[in-house]
Amino acid sequence: MTNVFEHPWLGGLFGDDEASAIWSPERQMRHMLAFEKAWAQALGHVGIVPSDIAHAAAKAIGGFAPDLPALRRGSARDGLPVPALIVQLKAAAGANAHAVHRGATSQDVIDTALALTLREMSDLFTARIERLSQGLGDLTKRFGDNALMGRTRMQAALPIAAADRIVIWQMPLADHLRRLEQVRDRVELLQFGGAAGNRAATGGKSFAIAEFLADALHLGNPPRSWHARRDGIAEYAGHLSLITGTLGKMGQDICLMAQQGVDEIDLADGGGSSAMPHKQNPILAELLVTLARFNAVQVSGIHHALVHEQERSGAAWSLEWMIVPQMALATARSLEAASELCRQIVRVGRSNDGSNHQ
Amino acid sequence: MTNVFEHPWLGGLFGDDEASAIWSPERQMRHMLAFEKAWAQALGHVGIVPSDIAHAAAKAIGGFAPDLPALRRGSARDGLPVPALIVQLKAAAGANAHAVHRGATSQDVIDTALALTLREMSDLFTARIERLSQGLGDLTKRFGDNALMGRTRMQAALPIAAADRIVIWQMPLADHLRRLEQVRDRVELLQFGGAAGNRAATGGKSFAIAEFLADALHLGNPPRSWHARRDGIAEYAGHLSLITGTLGKMGQDICLMAQQGVDEIDLADGGGSSAMPHKQNPILAELLVTLARFNAVQVSGIHHALVHEQERSGAAWSLEWMIVPQMALATARSLEAASELCRQIVRVGRSNDGSNHQ
Amino acid sequence: MTNVFEHPWLGGLFGDDEASAIWSPERQMRHMLAFEKAWAQALGHVGIVPSDIAHAAAKAIGGFAPDLPALRRGSARDGLPVPALIVQLKAAAGANAHAVHRGATSQDVIDTALALTLREMSDLFTARIERLSQGLGDLTKRFGDNALMGRTRMQAALPIAAADRIVIWQMPLADHLRRLEQVRDRVELLQFGGAAGNRAATGGKSFAIAEFLADALHLGNPPRSWHARRDGIAEYAGHLSLITGTLGKMGQDICLMAQQGVDEIDLADGGGSSAMPHKQNPILAELLVTLARFNAVQVSGIHHALVHEQERSGAAWSLEWMIVPQMALATARSLEAASELCRQIVRVGRSNDGSNHQ
Amino acid sequence: MTNVFEHPWLGGLFGDDEASAIWSPERQMRHMLAFEKAWAQALGHVGIVPSDIAHAAAKAIGGFAPDLPALRRGSARDGLPVPALIVQLKAAAGANAHAVHRGATSQDVIDTALALTLREMSDLFTARIERLSQGLGDLTKRFGDNALMGRTRMQAALPIAAADRIVIWQMPLADHLRRLEQVRDRVELLQFGGAAGNRAATGGKSFAIAEFLADALHLGNPPRSWHARRDGIAEYAGHLSLITGTLGKMGQDICLMAQQGVDEIDLADGGGSSAMPHKQNPILAELLVTLARFNAVQVSGIHHALVHEQERSGAAWSLEWMIVPQMALATARSLEAASELCRQIVRVGRSNDGSNHQ
Repeated sequence: MTNVFEHPWLGGLFGDDEASAIWSPERQMRHMLAFEKAWAQALGHVGIVPSDIAHAAAKAIGGFAPDLPALRRGSARDGLPVPALIVQLKAAAGANAHAVHRGATSQDVIDTALALTLREMSDLFTARIERLSQGLGDLTKRFGDNALMGRTRMQAALPIAAADRIVIWQMPLADHLRRLEQVRDRVELLQFGGAAGNRAATGGKSFAIAEFLADALHLGNPPRSWHARRDGIAEYAGHLSLITGTLGKMGQDICLMAQQGVDEIDLADGGGSSAMPHKQNPILAELLVTLARFNAVQVSGIHHALVHEQERSGAAWSLEWMIVPQMALATARSLEAASELCRQIVRVGRSNDGSNHQ
Repeated sequence: MTNVFEHPWLGGLFGDDEASAIWSPERQMRHMLAFEKAWAQALGHVGIVPSDIAHAAAKAIGGFAPDLPALRRGSARDGLPVPALIVQLKAAAGANAHAVHRGATSQDVIDTALALTLREMSDLFTARIERLSQGLGDLTKRFGDNALMGRTRMQAALPIAAADRIVIWQMPLADHLRRLEQVRDRVELLQFGGAAGNRAATGGKSFAIAEFLADALHLGNPPRSWHARRDGIAEYAGHLSLITGTLGKMGQDICLMAQQGVDEIDLADGGGSSAMPHKQNPILAELLVTLARFNAVQVSGIHHALVHEQERSGAAWSLEWMIVPQMALATARSLEAASELCRQIVRVGRSNDGSNHQ
Repeated sequence: MTNVFEHPWLGGLFGDDEASAIWSPERQMRHMLAFEKAWAQALGHVGIVPSDIAHAAAKAIGGFAPDLPALRRGSARDGLPVPALIVQLKAAAGANAHAVHRGATSQDVIDTALALTLREMSDLFTARIERLSQGLGDLTKRFGDNALMGRTRMQAALPIAAADRIVIWQMPLADHLRRLEQVRDRVELLQFGGAAGNRAATGGKSFAIAEFLADALHLGNPPRSWHARRDGIAEYAGHLSLITGTLGKMGQDICLMAQQGVDEIDLADGGGSSAMPHKQNPILAELLVTLARFNAVQVSGIHHALVHEQERSGAAWSLEWMIVPQMALATARSLEAASELCRQIVRVGRSNDGSNHQ
Repeated sequence: MTNVFEHPWLGGLFGDDEASAIWSPERQMRHMLAFEKAWAQALGHVGIVPSDIAHAAAKAIGGFAPDLPALRRGSARDGLPVPALIVQLKAAAGANAHAVHRGATSQDVIDTALALTLREMSDLFTARIERLSQGLGDLTKRFGDNALMGRTRMQAALPIAAADRIVIWQMPLADHLRRLEQVRDRVELLQFGGAAGNRAATGGKSFAIAEFLADALHLGNPPRSWHARRDGIAEYAGHLSLITGTLGKMGQDICLMAQQGVDEIDLADGGGSSAMPHKQNPILAELLVTLARFNAVQVSGIHHALVHEQERSGAAWSLEWMIVPQMALATARSLEAASELCRQIVRVGRSNDGSNHQ
C-alpha cells in the first residue's frame, strides 16, 4: 500500500496511466540518455572531442540499455544513479568513452530530465484543464439557470443560480492556465553547471555547449545553472497545489450538495458500500478533497527544499524526488477525476418549476 | 511570547515596524472604512440612495471612530467584526443609515481591506527586493573575484569564485519581482459579491457600483466576487515563501561559511553569547533560515484554505487570517535582515594572493 | 491583524485571556528570573560562591525590573534577550554580580522558562479537557437516546443514536489526558547544560546544582541537558494538535448537523451576518475546524525543528518560539470554545416521537 | 520516479525490503482475509450462522486468491476494494456466502488490516531502535573520550567530548521505545463497527464477536469502533516523525562534522560523484536529513485527517492511505541507514594526543 498511484487495487482510485507513463523509470531513463547523447554531440560540436568520436559515443548512448540492478547498487552507494550509469555508458562507448559526460555532472543529467518531464506534464495539465473547463461550461449550459440555495458558513443564505456556484469552480482554471504558461519559462530549462555549478570544466566553450544542448532538447537556455536555486521547481509545485485546491473546493461542494436533505445534485455511478448496497457514494468528489489536502501538505516540503546548501544539497535535492512526482500524479488524477465527475452529474439544483429533474 | 513579531524583546529580532504598521488594526480599520465610505458613495452614484444622503453617510463614515470593545464582543458572537461595525456606522450615520453597507456583505469589506493591504505590502516587498539585489550586487563587486571552495553535498568539490555563490542568492530576486508583478493582478482586486456572492441585492446596478468602487479604491475590477475562490491569495502566499526560501538558502550558506575551519566569510556585528563573550554568532543568517522554514510551514495552511465550502467558508477564511499576516511579516523581516546582513559582510572568500582580507 | 489571539477585535473570537496570561512577557520574565534566582542560590548551596553573596544576588534578582527596550536591542543583536538581561542583572546585583548566571547559558534560562510555562499550560489543558468531557457527557445524558441519521462518506447510511456520534467526540479526551500525563515527564524538565551543553563550567558540582534547581523550580531533573534534543517539545506540540484535531472533528460534525435540510442540531446564540440578519451561524463550530487545521499545519514546523544542529541551533530553536506558543493558545481556545459550544447546544437529533424538540 | 521506496534505481537509496514486504499488497490482502476469515468464524461462534456453514466459509476464505483487476475496477467505482472483494469471497464461499462479511463493513476490514500492519512495523521499529542504540553505544565506547569542538549556532563554542554529542543522538531512542510502547495500546486495536460504526447489525452479539475477533487476531478489543476517531493513528505517525527527527539531527551533525576544515569524523564508503572521483559524500547522513524533513511534512497531513466527518469520512480516511505507509517506510529506512552509518564511522573527534586517528 506504499504507493497508491500504482497499487494493484488502489491504483484504480488514485492511478493515472498517462501521468504514470511520463514518470516511469523507462521514460526517465530516456530523458537522461537524451541529455547524455546531446552532451556527447555538443562536445563534438564545440570541438572538445573530435566529431567522429562524439558521434560514435552519441550513437552508443542512443542504443544503450542500462543494467538496472547495477544502477540500484550505484544509487545506494552514491545517492543517485548517475555515476553508475556513466560507468555503464563509458563501457558501452568503448574507445569513445572520453566523449561521455565529460564536463557534466549528475545534477545536470537528472535536472534536465526533470525539465523534460515537467514539459510533458505541463502539456498534459494544459489539455486537461481546458477539457475540464469545457466540462464545467457544459454543466453551466445544462443546469446554470436552476436554483440553488446559496450557503455561507454552511448555512442557508439566499437563493442563487446553479451557475453562480459552478462558475467559481471554473473561473480559476483560466488563471491556472496563465500561471502554468508563466512558470513554464522558469522550469523548462536546461540544467548545465558541471561539477561545482559554474561550468568551469568546459570553460569558454560552455555557452556554445549550452546553446547546442538547449536546442537539441528544446529547452530554455538560462545563463547559469540552477543547481542550487530551486524557486522555479517550488513555484511549479505550488501551482499544482493551486489546481488541486480549486478542484478540492469543487469536490467538497459536490459532497455537500449530494447530502440527503440538501439534494442539490444527482450523480450517476456513485460508489457502492460493502454493508449498504443502497448507498451511492460521491467517490470522485471525495477524491478531489483528498488530493487537494495531499498536495497542500506536500507543497510545504518543496518550500523546505529551497534551503539548499551551497552548490548542491544532497538532502534538499532528494527531498524533491520524494515529493514532486507524487504532486504531479495527484494533480493529473485530480483533473481527470474532475472531468469524469462532470460527466457523472445528471442534475444540479432545481428547475424553475420546482422539480428536481433536469 | 505568542507573537514574536511584536513582542517586547523578541520583536527586536523578528519585528519589522514598517510591515507591522501596514497590518496594524488602525490601518486595517482605515481600509475597512475606505470600503464602506466608497460603498455609500457608490450607492449615491448609481441612484440606489439619493446623492445627498449618500454623501452624508460617506462623511459620517469618514469621521468615524470605532468602539473597539464592542467590535471585540461582536467578533466573538459573529466570527468577524463587520456586523458590529455596521451597527456602529449606522448609528453614526443617523438618518442616513440606509446608505450604509446596503447590499454589501462582511466578506466584501474584509477582503477588500486585504487587497489594499497586499498592495501596500507588495510595494514594500518590491522596494526591498530591489534594495537587496543591489546589496548583493555590491558584494559581488567587492568580493566576487575572491576564491571559495565550491561545496556539493556539504563536501569540498572544486574552487569557485565568490561571485558564483553570491549570484545564486541574487538571481532568483529578479524572478521574484516578476512573480510579484504577475500575481498583483490576481490579488489587488475589489471584493464585491453581496450576501451570497452573486451581487443579487444590487441587481443591474452592480457593475456600475463595482466600477465606482474599483476606481475609488484603485483596485482591479473582476467580473465577479472571489469570495470562495482563494487561488490568488494562496499564490501570493506561495510567492512570499519562495522569497523567504531564497533568503533561507543565503542564510544557511552564510552560517556554513562562517564556521571556524571553513572561514569563508567575516561578519561585523555578530551576536553575543551569555556564556561565551568571545563568540560572534551569525544571528541574522540564522534568522533567514528560521523565517524560511516558518513560511514553508505556513504555506501549507493557505493551500488547505483553498478547500472553501460553497459561497463562503467561515472556517477556511479565518484560517487565512491566522496565517497570511504572519507570512507577510516574516517575509518583510527576512528581506530587511538580508539587506542588513549584506552590510555586515566584510569579507567573502580569499583574495588571489591567498589572504583572508578583502 | 498579525496576531489574532491578542487582536483588538479578532481577539474576541480567537483570544483566550487565561492562556495569554501564561504566555505573557511578564510571566515569561518571571520564569526567567525564577531560574536566575534559583541559580544564584544554587551557586551558594554548592559553594561556588559564598552563601551570603549568593543570597544577596538572589535577592537582587527577586526584586529586579527589566529595562525592556534594552532587552529588545539585545535580542536584535544576540538573537535572544538573555545576554542583555544578564548585563542588567549583574548591574542590579552590583558587588554580588559574580553570583549571577555564572556557569549557566541562555538556553538554560529560556528552556527552563518554557518548561515552567508548559507545566502551567498542561494544568490548564487538563482542567479544560475534563470540563469538556463533562459537557459532552451531559449532552449524551440529555440527547443521547435521540435519533440521528448515521452518515458515511457524507451520505445517509443507517439511523444511529445521538450518543453514537457524541461519544466519538468524547472518547478521545480520556486518551488525551493519558497522553498529556505521559508527556509531562518528558517536558517539565530543568534545562541545565551551560555553554556547550555538557555542564563543563560547573564540573563535579553540576549534579548538586541540578538537584537544587529542579527542587526549587519543581521540575524534573534529567541526567543531561536537552539543549539539542527536542523530541519532548515536538511530542508535546503533537499532542496539542491531536486535541484540536478531535475538537475539529466535533466542530465539523456540528457544522454539518446545523445545515438546513439536515437539521440535526439546534444552537442558541449562533453568530449574525452583516447582510442577512435572519442567519444563525455556527461560529464556534467553525472555529474548532479552523484551529484544528491551524495546529495541523504548525505541528509540521515543530517536527522540522528537531533537525537541530550540533550543541545548539539558533535557527531551529527560534522556530519553536514562533510556533509553540501559538499552538498552545489555539489549543486552549479550542477547548474553551468546545465547552461553550456544548452549552449552546439545545437539541441533538430527534426524539423517538419524531419531534425536533428536546 | 513516483515511488522512491520501490523504484528500480532510487530504491537502492530509499528502499527497505523488510518494511516494503510488510506493506506489500500480498501482505495487506492476507490481513484483510484474516479479518474476513475470523469474522466468518465469529458469526458461527455466536450463532448468527450455523457453525458448519461458518467453518466452510472460513475455509473458503482461507484458500481464496483474489482477482486483482476486478479489485482495481471495484476501487475505482467504490473508493476502496472491499465491496468487490466481498463479491469475490461470496462467490468463492458459494452456498455459504451468507457467512461472509455479514454485519461487517469495509472500514472494519481495512482498519483491522492496518492495525495488524502497524503491529508488525512496531516490532521492526523496536528491534531497529535497539540495534541503533547499541551502534551508538559502541561509537561512544570507541570514540567517546576524543575531543570535539562544541558548536552552538554553528560557531565554535568550547571543547567537548565526542560522547557529549553522540549521547544526544542516542538518548532520545530510549524515549522513542517508551512512546512506541505507550502508543501500541492505542493502535493495535480491532476495528469493528459495522455499517454506521455502532455495531447495530450484530446487536447483542457484538461484544462476543469482538472478543472472538480480538482473540483470533491478537489485537486489543476497544469498547467501540474507532472509525471516525483517528487520534491513535495520528499519534503513531507523529512518533514516527519524532524518530526520523532524532536521526535527522544525527545526520545533519555528521554532514557538518564531515566538512573539510571541520574534519570531526571519518566515514568509510562515502558515495562517489560522476564529476569528481576524489569526493567521498556522506550519502547516508544526508539521507537521514531528507527522511526527517519528509516525515516532518507528512505528519501534518495525518493531523489534517483527524477532521473526519460524521461516522466515516472517505476523504480524510483515504488521505491516511496516501501518507501513513510512506511515513512508515521512511522511518524504517532511516533507522536502517543510521545503523549502517554507525558502522561506516571510523573516527569521531581527535584523540587526546591530538591525532586524527582512532
